[in-house]
Amino acid sequence: MSVETVKASVLHGEKDLRLEERSLPAPSADEVQITVQSTGLCGSDLHYFGHFRNGDILVREPLTLGHESSGTVVAVGSGVSNLKPGDRVALEVGLPCEDCEYCSSGRYNICRGMKFRSSAKAFPHMQGTLQERINHPARWVHKLPETIPLDLGALIEPLSVAMHAHRRANLTSESTVLVFGAGAVGLLSAAVSKANGATAVVIADIQKDRVDFAVNNGFADAGFVVPLARPQTIDEKLAYAQQVAEQARSVKVNGKEVGEVGAVYECTGVESCLQSAIYATKPGGKVMIIGMGTPVLTLPMSAAALREVDLVGVFRYANTYPAAIEMLSNKPAGLPNLQTLVTHRFKGLDQVQSAFEMAGKVKDGEGKLVIKVVVDMS
Amino acid sequence: MSVETVKASVLHGEKDLRLEERSLPAPSADEVQITVQSTGLCGSDLHYFGHFRNGDILVREPLTLGHESSGTVVAVGSGVSNLKPGDRVALEVGLPCEDCEYCSSGRYNICRGMKFRSSAKAFPHMQGTLQERINHPARWVHKLPETIPLDLGALIEPLSVAMHAHRRANLTSESTVLVFGAGAVGLLSAAVSKANGATAVVIADIQKDRVDFAVNNGFADAGFVVPLARPQTIDEKLAYAQQVAEQARSVKVNGKEVGEVGAVYECTGVESCLQSAIYATKPGGKVMIIGMGTPVLTLPMSAAALREVDLVGVFRYANTYPAAIEMLSNKPAGLPNLQTLVTHRFKGLDQVQSAFEMAGKVKDGEGKLVIKVVVDMS
Amino acid sequence: MSVETVKASVLHGEKDLRLEERSLPAPSADEVQITVQSTGLCGSDLHYFGHFRNGDILVREPLTLGHESSGTVVAVGSGVSNLKPGDRVALEVGLPCEDCEYCSSGRYNICRGMKFRSSAKAFPHMQGTLQERINHPARWVHKLPETIPLDLGALIEPLSVAMHAHRRANLTSESTVLVFGAGAVGLLSAAVSKANGATAVVIADIQKDRVDFAVNNGFADAGFVVPLARPQTIDEKLAYAQQVAEQARSVKVNGKEVGEVGAVYECTGVESCLQSAIYATKPGGKVMIIGMGTPVLTLPMSAAALREVDLVGVFRYANTYPAAIEMLSNKPAGLPNLQTLVTHRFKGLDQVQSAFEMAGKVKDGEGKLVIKVVVDMS
Amino acid sequence: MSVETVKASVLHGEKDLRLEERSLPAPSADEVQITVQSTGLCGSDLHYFGHFRNGDILVREPLTLGHESSGTVVAVGSGVSNLKPGDRVALEVGLPCEDCEYCSSGRYNICRGMKFRSSAKAFPHMQGTLQERINHPARWVHKLPETIPLDLGALIEPLSVAMHAHRRANLTSESTVLVFGAGAVGLLSAAVSKANGATAVVIADIQKDRVDFAVNNGFADAGFVVPLARPQTIDEKLAYAQQVAEQARSVKVNGKEVGEVGAVYECTGVESCLQSAIYATKPGGKVMIIGMGTPVLTLPMSAAALREVDLVGVFRYANTYPAAIEMLSNKPAGLPNLQTLVTHRFKGLDQVQSAFEMAGKVKDGEGKLVIKVVVDMS
Repeated sequence: MSVETVKASVLHGEKDLRLEERSLPAPSADEVQITVQSTGLCGSDLHYFGHFRNGDILVREPLTLGHESSGTVVAVGSGVSNLKPGDRVALEVGLPCEDCEYCSSGRYNICRGMKFRSSAKAFPHMQGTLQERINHPARWVHKLPETIPLDLGALIEPLSVAMHAHRRANLTSESTVLVFGAGAVGLLSAAVSKANGATAVVIADIQKDRVDFAVNNGFADAGFVVPLARPQTIDEKLAYAQQVAEQARSVKVNGKEVGEVGAVYECTGVESCLQSAIYATKPGGKVMIIGMGTPVLTLPMSAAALREVDLVGVFRYANTYPAAIEMLSNKPAGLPNLQTLVTHRFKGLDQVQSAFEMAGKVKDGEGKLVIKVVVDMS
Repeated sequence: MSVETVKASVLHGEKDLRLEERSLPAPSADEVQITVQSTGLCGSDLHYFGHFRNGDILVREPLTLGHESSGTVVAVGSGVSNLKPGDRVALEVGLPCEDCEYCSSGRYNICRGMKFRSSAKAFPHMQGTLQERINHPARWVHKLPETIPLDLGALIEPLSVAMHAHRRANLTSESTVLVFGAGAVGLLSAAVSKANGATAVVIADIQKDRVDFAVNNGFADAGFVVPLARPQTIDEKLAYAQQVAEQARSVKVNGKEVGEVGAVYECTGVESCLQSAIYATKPGGKVMIIGMGTPVLTLPMSAAALREVDLVGVFRYANTYPAAIEMLSNKPAGLPNLQTLVTHRFKGLDQVQSAFEMAGKVKDGEGKLVIKVVVDMS
Repeated sequence: MSVETVKASVLHGEKDLRLEERSLPAPSADEVQITVQSTGLCGSDLHYFGHFRNGDILVREPLTLGHESSGTVVAVGSGVSNLKPGDRVALEVGLPCEDCEYCSSGRYNICRGMKFRSSAKAFPHMQGTLQERINHPARWVHKLPETIPLDLGALIEPLSVAMHAHRRANLTSESTVLVFGAGAVGLLSAAVSKANGATAVVIADIQKDRVDFAVNNGFADAGFVVPLARPQTIDEKLAYAQQVAEQARSVKVNGKEVGEVGAVYECTGVESCLQSAIYATKPGGKVMIIGMGTPVLTLPMSAAALREVDLVGVFRYANTYPAAIEMLSNKPAGLPNLQTLVTHRFKGLDQVQSAFEMAGKVKDGEGKLVIKVVVDMS
Repeated sequence: MSVETVKASVLHGEKDLRLEERSLPAPSADEVQITVQSTGLCGSDLHYFGHFRNGDILVREPLTLGHESSGTVVAVGSGVSNLKPGDRVALEVGLPCEDCEYCSSGRYNICRGMKFRSSAKAFPHMQGTLQERINHPARWVHKLPETIPLDLGALIEPLSVAMHAHRRANLTSESTVLVFGAGAVGLLSAAVSKANGATAVVIADIQKDRVDFAVNNGFADAGFVVPLARPQTIDEKLAYAQQVAEQARSVKVNGKEVGEVGAVYECTGVESCLQSAIYATKPGGKVMIIGMGTPVLTLPMSAAALREVDLVGVFRYANTYPAAIEMLSNKPAGLPNLQTLVTHRFKGLDQVQSAFEMAGKVKDGEGKLVIKVVVDMS
């Protein structure tokens, strides 16, 4: 196998996506070559697309986006024994250093040397998956059983975030849970809680349609719409946050008010949601910080600390892919149908621009909710 | 309210149950008085009934059996505010000292001063629940919501053992599980695993009917019948145990062999099962020792230690009743219908002897499996 | 034993302490009566003394202060068997409800029904220990061995906070630790880390003398003085916090820069310290929130969450007294001499006002550092 | 750098050690080449030396022994950046697969594909360190600071076992500890407990001299000699084990009986010690199974399970080297002087046979205790 030419979608500036050709060498000894077939678009991709940056991280060279991907192995390096051409696979796109204390002790997600496809944090940037084919280290390529379709295979990436959050929360099984944000990660967090026997899963969003989607599709037992407001002073803000928390507490599941919950999965990154999360959590409970937004937040820390409500960060995931594949394969009874999350599909690399435009909307032109947009390259 | 006379079933010797009258004072300040309505019979009750002892523990004075009970509050002590007459309740029948390091730190099940109804360990014995009415400290009486019938209320006691085992196993959600013993506690252990999203629950028993019951009623994903054998030497015994473990590993769930499991819930107390449990567990996994049988066992300890398979004891339960009520109330999707476990019911205290005789059988006269026998005193 | 009259120091308003007489009944069945002999003054006492309030908590009736106390049993209730007159004891002055999920599961410090001596949170207020004698439930009275002097017995209360923080941090033994605030709780947090084999303990304070005290007396391996500054904008504040964190990282222990630490024990409650704490902690580490100050803080939350630096609240303590007595009794090699913390002593209840005035100072008139002021009533 | 010839000590049969020459290629890209300078002899080495097998594991080809080693880097592969010639290093000699769930999640010690120097488990055997020079993957080579002498560097291997046991025990700091076996691993287990603030460390051995060594050198607070006995029946055996446990409980530290301990570190692998360990542990405590001996043991399992005394296996170690280097470098106050463990030293590869003969003795010809024998190749 020699060097070949493949097509790649490449971002050159704000909303400036170009379809280009790239040379792709044969996979090295420990790599496999994969035809990318399904790639979900993520919020960070969308930020790069719209602003050529993601928060503080500037794009410094042309960048291919995409990191929620599945595909089929087409070639394997000389040292690869556990995969073979034809295998359908999900890609774990973060490549840690495999040498530091974090990698050795199983927390490779916080490895300081992590390179992550489609992220501009490391330089040179590690290119994303919106390419026809890529080479990827076999260690980070996970074989999918026949029962898992490629779209679900691509969803394992955001699902991994939810599973990692679930593990870090380390709740006893019987906990009640509140999720802020009914986007993909919020819905997946709710789904993981449902699959693991949470006694009540409540979801909150500013969009009624999203809340309805969550409840109607079995992602949550109940939900509520967070009222829009523009509190100005810190006192007004905290009063608003307490009011939202009160709204959460009074949601009924099985005829009973949920009350303060064991954990909040905060998937919005919005200051007022994190404030509400603190107020909505019971003493000894946990606020899982999943959504990233404003980097500096003003929070009622005494209300957290005096009740030993811990604020626990969730950054990506580690050791989740095999477990996610196991879960998707065995479908525990509480797990909702995750394929309902794929609401929009665009065929081919030349549709990436349209896909991103759709991903930026709350609803499509026909009024249908936009949750996960997939670029289908099969 | 003054001292009254109530009927009680009292064991005076092997199989010598007598219906007697007892005087019952008004509940003291921190007690409630309860009409006992549903009591499940447990293996330890059956041992006392049959042998007037339970292993090394001899009965030293007439003893009322029964400790899996629910009923209705009929009177409350002067200091009780959280319960009132008419409340339907489940009884937590172990009364720890509430003063020692174990009680203070939440592990009251291993309090050295524990008094447990129907157990002859402490002297004077704490009398069991097979009485018309009893007084019980309000702290250990748990109100049932309307949606939980009294039979389920009584089942919370053995369910608590399963929940405590589940917590001590502290698995990540995605684990595979093997249960030895498809009696009430084994089935409940399987049920708790199912409710909490275990990816595969396999159950094993020497009775095919029990295995079938488990699988057909949703307590396990698959099961197998442990072959009867009489290995004599230790080498033969270990060979047999390895063969049973191999049988467990090759069980298929969703078309895939389960392989070594993350945890075994050993609910038989039989030496060969514990040996098999060690072999059937994956490196880093756990063997939960729930069933009590022969007190001294010969085990392949190197096979455990060299793979960091831990042997974790499970003694009764602590802090499970509120969580069990929450679970029974909210019914997570994976939870099977626990009322199927109540296979036989005997009405009234004068039927206790018949109830015990039935509880000692594998099947009743009509060939129906005997799992949980309930004395219904409502 | 009948009702007697005892003297008590009672706060009637800002700095309005009066020596009054109170009637004291015989101890009830589960109580012991204690002659209070040593009482340390705490920051919360000082707030009440100076402002007749503590943060949001207003004093609503005359209040006796003091909750870090030891003394001698003079009488025991009829139901008390583990204590007898003449026993020297430390008092655990928080009385939880002993009935709720937190009390049952060992986290009684966050019991919603907690009554705490000298706190005005519950009403009627539970009176503090600056009285000649008090009755206290025997369960919360801990016998001191002969080897522990009464001053150390009184210190067990703030030491408990440090031990609880240490347990909640749940570090592997080999961690590096940074402590913000070299007051009593900060010094005790450092001491507990030293006693438990932390590889490097660094302490920071705005007072050079306090830092020197910590290092010279073996509470910390090294320390640094936090520079005073008045950053105005949030950007300036965060820049300052990063600079302090950089200062912490570059402290040398055994000739090597400490770098980011495994845990920060934040004992000041000051916003900039908590900001610095986040920056000074390594990925996967923990910021223990011990000091209470401004209830609402602006924090660089992304810097925490993206590195999975968790913010963990520490509220008082649970299950620490027996362990503290064990530690003070056995004196592990790393434990510094805690009696050096008692820098000032005032004899008798009529000296309480002077004691409080001293406790409010950084140094006494002779330039000696004020750390812990004890009211000695022996 | 080209292929060179180095001398190696090679075992060809029982006690048949030969000094041979081997060719050593230049280190590959990710390897370093190390001059081995200090190698401690371990019990498993001694078994191979004496029996050409270790338990069930037969040697199938000539085998170089040795795996507790330190040395100096003499060459580095092209991809190695964190080490350079001249660096003094400790070798972590187990090479896990770096691909499986155990390697990914930080438990690489139980990786099924582990290759371990001087072990005959994998085939071809991975050759040990009793060679002049070896190539070793840079990831598993740990740089020593100047303050740690090479003998201590070699001791990090058995020290790692003790640290791993300590972590798996996961005790709160204040625990009491009992160690069975005052050989190198037992002494190191005691040392790690001391360094981490255990309130009482008791050590037991059948050799009075070893117990005295432990206490006199600060490895334990107290100790006792386990009486030799030859109980025959299981009842006699358990009675003996209970008597030894009673002996342990009655040991005094600081004038107080230790009583049941929080954890036992069982470092002998002897059945009666493990039995005693169960009886000597307090409810909720842990028995750490470190010593490997008879693979099948008869144990009082009910005495463990009914008190929730868990039996926790300890197999080698993971993620301990950096922490051990940190500890040896910073010397927490409780840590005894580990260099006292190196009781005998043999200079040069041609002294290996003599070294093994010494390592097999309890005392040398002059009556000096033999603890750790080091082959010094510097």
